[in-house]
Amino acid sequence: MPSIFTKIISGEIPSYKIAEDENYFAFLDINPNAVGHTLCVPKKEVDRLFDLDEETYTGLMNFARKIGIALEAAIPCKRVGMTVIGLEVPHVHVHLIPLQKMANATFQEKVTLTKDEFEEVAKKIKVHL
Amino acid sequence: MPSIFTKIISGEIPSYKIAEDENYFAFLDINPNAVGHTLCVPKKEVDRLFDLDEETYTGLMNFARKIGIALEAAIPCKRVGMTVIGLEVPHVHVHLIPLQKMANATFQEKVTLTKDEFEEVAKKIKVHL
Repeated sequence: MPSIFTKIISGEIPSYKIAEDENYFAFLDINPNAVGHTLCVPKKEVDRLFDLDEETYTGLMNFARKIGIALEAAIPCKRVGMTVIGLEVPHVHVHLIPLQKMANATFQEKVTLTKDEFEEVAKKIKVHL
Repeated sequence: MPSIFTKIISGEIPSYKIAEDENYFAFLDINPNAVGHTLCVPKKEVDRLFDLDEETYTGLMNFARKIGIALEAAIPCKRVGMTVIGLEVPHVHVHLIPLQKMANATFQEKVTLTKDEFEEVAKKIKVHL
């Protein structure tokens, strides 16, 4: 069965898309730690980060770098943090999280946005890509 | 003033070293989330991840991948997670954390090891490099 992220990439499940190329896809986390929290995923469905082949891994990290730089330009924050955990969805995903404080990085606090606010945030980030 | 990680790299502050090459250095986190928690740092002292030039960033991520693969072979865990936060020490560092559960990834729980245990863990990881 395709993962929830594969369904997002195919458009079967809607998302607030940030960027896409041949091999990678970025979209806003729907349950964000902070405004601008973005997920970057490889289109290839692999469960664990270090099971990605070297080329796909390096490509993912460079894709995440471009998004991270845009996030730091678009969203007021001290810096953008990066986290890969993956204990819940078996499809590699890189969290990019605009940080003001440690709690933004540790998944202990969540923020709620309306559909309009998500769309506005996505638009602001895409200006910097 | 040099960062605490620059002092670790130079040997001024002792560490349980895992690996080193021309540009990067890996050592055990002294206040680990889980057994095997390792930090990978560029020798170049830069504060924020996305301020690294592309070459240094890509090199750091590939260095971390090699260590992550060794960690998954050496330490019993569901997978190795990766986190970059950096709100405390202004010198880029990639956390590689063997995960059994979400709490290992969120810096909410810590484990305590003796000097002998740290040395034993470092030895076990290095076998796989």
